[in-house]
Amino acid sequence: MAQAQRRRNCNIGTGSECKEKELLLLLLLRERGRSEGQGHQQQQQRWLNRTTSLNNNAKATMATVLAMAMAMAMLLLFYSSSTSTRITTPSTTGTADEALSISDVDADAVINLDHGDPTMFEPFWKNAGDKATVIIPGWHTMSYFSDTSNLCWFLEPDFANQVRRLHRIVGNAVTHAHHIIVGVGSTQLIHALLFALSATNTRHPVSVVSAAPFYSMYPGITDFLKSGLFRWAGDATSFKVNGSSSFIEIVCSPNNPDGTLRRAVLSTEAGKLVHDLAYYWPQYTPMRGPADEDIMLFTVSKATGHAGTRIGWALVRDADIASRMVKFIEMNSIGVSKDSQVRAARILQVISDGYELPDPDSTTSFFHFSRRLLADRWQRLRRAVEESGRFSLPQFSSEFCEFTKEHTETYPAFAWLRCDDESIEDCEGFFKSMKVLTRSGRHFGAGSEYIRISMLDRARNFDLFVERIASLGLG
Amino acid sequence: MAQAQRRRNCNIGTGSECKEKELLLLLLLRERGRSEGQGHQQQQQRWLNRTTSLNNNAKATMATVLAMAMAMAMLLLFYSSSTSTRITTPSTTGTADEALSISDVDADAVINLDHGDPTMFEPFWKNAGDKATVIIPGWHTMSYFSDTSNLCWFLEPDFANQVRRLHRIVGNAVTHAHHIIVGVGSTQLIHALLFALSATNTRHPVSVVSAAPFYSMYPGITDFLKSGLFRWAGDATSFKVNGSSSFIEIVCSPNNPDGTLRRAVLSTEAGKLVHDLAYYWPQYTPMRGPADEDIMLFTVSKATGHAGTRIGWALVRDADIASRMVKFIEMNSIGVSKDSQVRAARILQVISDGYELPDPDSTTSFFHFSRRLLADRWQRLRRAVEESGRFSLPQFSSEFCEFTKEHTETYPAFAWLRCDDESIEDCEGFFKSMKVLTRSGRHFGAGSEYIRISMLDRARNFDLFVERIASLGLG
Repeated sequence: MAQAQRRRNCNIGTGSECKEKELLLLLLLRERGRSEGQGHQQQQQRWLNRTTSLNNNAKATMATVLAMAMAMAMLLLFYSSSTSTRITTPSTTGTADEALSISDVDADAVINLDHGDPTMFEPFWKNAGDKATVIIPGWHTMSYFSDTSNLCWFLEPDFANQVRRLHRIVGNAVTHAHHIIVGVGSTQLIHALLFALSATNTRHPVSVVSAAPFYSMYPGITDFLKSGLFRWAGDATSFKVNGSSSFIEIVCSPNNPDGTLRRAVLSTEAGKLVHDLAYYWPQYTPMRGPADEDIMLFTVSKATGHAGTRIGWALVRDADIASRMVKFIEMNSIGVSKDSQVRAARILQVISDGYELPDPDSTTSFFHFSRRLLADRWQRLRRAVEESGRFSLPQFSSEFCEFTKEHTETYPAFAWLRCDDESIEDCEGFFKSMKVLTRSGRHFGAGSEYIRISMLDRARNFDLFVERIASLGLG
Repeated sequence: MAQAQRRRNCNIGTGSECKEKELLLLLLLRERGRSEGQGHQQQQQRWLNRTTSLNNNAKATMATVLAMAMAMAMLLLFYSSSTSTRITTPSTTGTADEALSISDVDADAVINLDHGDPTMFEPFWKNAGDKATVIIPGWHTMSYFSDTSNLCWFLEPDFANQVRRLHRIVGNAVTHAHHIIVGVGSTQLIHALLFALSATNTRHPVSVVSAAPFYSMYPGITDFLKSGLFRWAGDATSFKVNGSSSFIEIVCSPNNPDGTLRRAVLSTEAGKLVHDLAYYWPQYTPMRGPADEDIMLFTVSKATGHAGTRIGWALVRDADIASRMVKFIEMNSIGVSKDSQVRAARILQVISDGYELPDPDSTTSFFHFSRRLLADRWQRLRRAVEESGRFSLPQFSSEFCEFTKEHTETYPAFAWLRCDDESIEDCEGFFKSMKVLTRSGRHFGAGSEYIRISMLDRARNFDLFVERIASLGLG
């Protein structure tokens, strides 16, 4: 345990030292990515491992001097070859541009921070190399069925094992008494739960509520098919519980959009609770111990950054509810892609291995790596917002994290920004005029003075965004 | 053109010669699969290519003698090592058992032919080897977005290209004037279409119909959420068109469950048509030229056998309908797995390459390979049914196939079997008593004298099933 704890304490840097290390690491990642397939990978891997592991020992100062000198040399190399690299390297993800300075990019570019596209995590996975690669032969996973002995017959056993393993390592949810139901992202699982928790033999649809500000998709998910089984009833805090009718309360914690920890606001006796824990991971918030709710939702999109894989999972205590969710997914899509489950299993495995296998460092400790990037982003955003004098952000107190075994800050996946400047009536519109796309508070059951901003985009976009906010304070 | 035609004529064997070749090929596939990763793959590939290509040339007789001798040797090898192989090889797909004789398996085993699980195609993909393998590094396809310039922003461009290419090669659908919408199987796309084709501002749900016998999932898909937008209205042939109200007719052709070619039975002026063409591929039915409907549905599940990949596609002429389908998929699952699309693209590519690249043979011509297996299965099933004297099957006339450029038979993916024996009231129950699970005609809007039987299961299950039917005629 002591050894595991020591490993988890590695590499959370702050301030200018952190930024230097991050720059260095990103440059190293860039170089490594460039050399893939050119015969130098093994040497670079050894060098990378040695360099990054130096961050953890007592010789950090000397190592930093050496590493910075190497980084300077690589920086020169980078600028001398950047043009040809950009032409020859397919820009499928943009990770090759992570280390670009703002001066390289178009200052007039539209920056889309409306969605929570978690591309920020790409550099970690690029660095993970072959061990995160999945190989699927043409004849694998052809059947509809994964495990006919499981209540969830389309659940790949290895994916289920890796889900339980990662929860055990992180300590964010109990799994031993729960069924795992896999879904096409947690979005399909919310649909499945609305179906599973509503009665089919009633004339009155069950009310679905969540405390405002609530995730902007909950109302649409509930109402867009005009189902006779359930209907959106808005903010849970203003919902009047009627003794004779049931309700479903969705509790998102940490909450999308504002990052706060949440508990149910309504009595559970009369209704049913769904705990959407998509953001209850160590990069976003201190771990307060394993959640043990009846129904909990997670997704690789926010846990690991693999939004394109479309895999979420529900932990469900009650077998009847789990069975009805399976029934929904049968009717909705006849199961869930096995290829995606195979890939998600590999991704989760790499994260768990990074904490359980020997020689962890900043390139193998996913949550530490991600938390460090988010910490730096939040620090820069808060500084720019403060300098602008026109906006404010939520404040969070430092809490003890059961995973890292230290007091840590909260770094939500979204910035829930308030326009304090009364001359700005529509905060979303104001940012749009700066060519920054955000999502208005109106979609979250709040006012137009609020916007939700993704903190998870690629470095180039985030840097440009912060620079635009900072420029407001210069006028 | 002449060269392409010549390629397409290869290797459709019939009768005992066909069965011998099939057995030989399956044995070869088994051995090759066993040796994967053991260092002999390249040699076996060369040997396999040489052996199978002999089937096409004038020295076929001599080659067959040689190959049968080798098969006998391998058969001995197989029996001498079968126990250890069964223990050490993970039985994820069962393809290793394709060549088992009936005597190896439990004659009392329950045979599940209820679902149309297309595992019959596994041997082709096992033989395809590395070229059908997909490799996805950890940092690929992480974003929600595939192509923001496309109406269907979650559609992988390479998958779209391979869809258009395969339709062009097979000649079963026009694509140049259609948008491609990818879905989690064609099941999600049917949901998306019901949403896209119904009006949101009406108090009356649109009626959804299909001519009986219709696919058993259509009623459930339409009604299970009690949507106010659409409702199931049953058999299209008995539906009364009301001038003031619209309807949606789903036309499944070739039809699930009975394999017949279909046209809409209702006037298209008053309603909207959805053409479910999941089975309009050369292994099942002669190609009558490219379909050119406003809305057409396909799925890799039935086209290539990759049911576990959960990828379907719609070809949709109208941009507004396509946009509303995209809206549905956003709300339902925020897009479709990019990993699965990448894999499906590779699978489609292998099929197309098999017909466009040099040196096609029975191991590279997917539709010919599959058609040959289905032809053999139908021949054996018809013989057993005839000998039993208690059942009947649909009859189809031979038609000219625009793809193979020859007159060919129809070999549906399902056998729509009728119990003619009046002592049998419930055909499904009768087969269940023989431990064969089928789906009763009642689910398809027909009578309980009918059952639907999957023709696409693994060889072992199908062989056992035919043996049980044949045994009924021996009494």
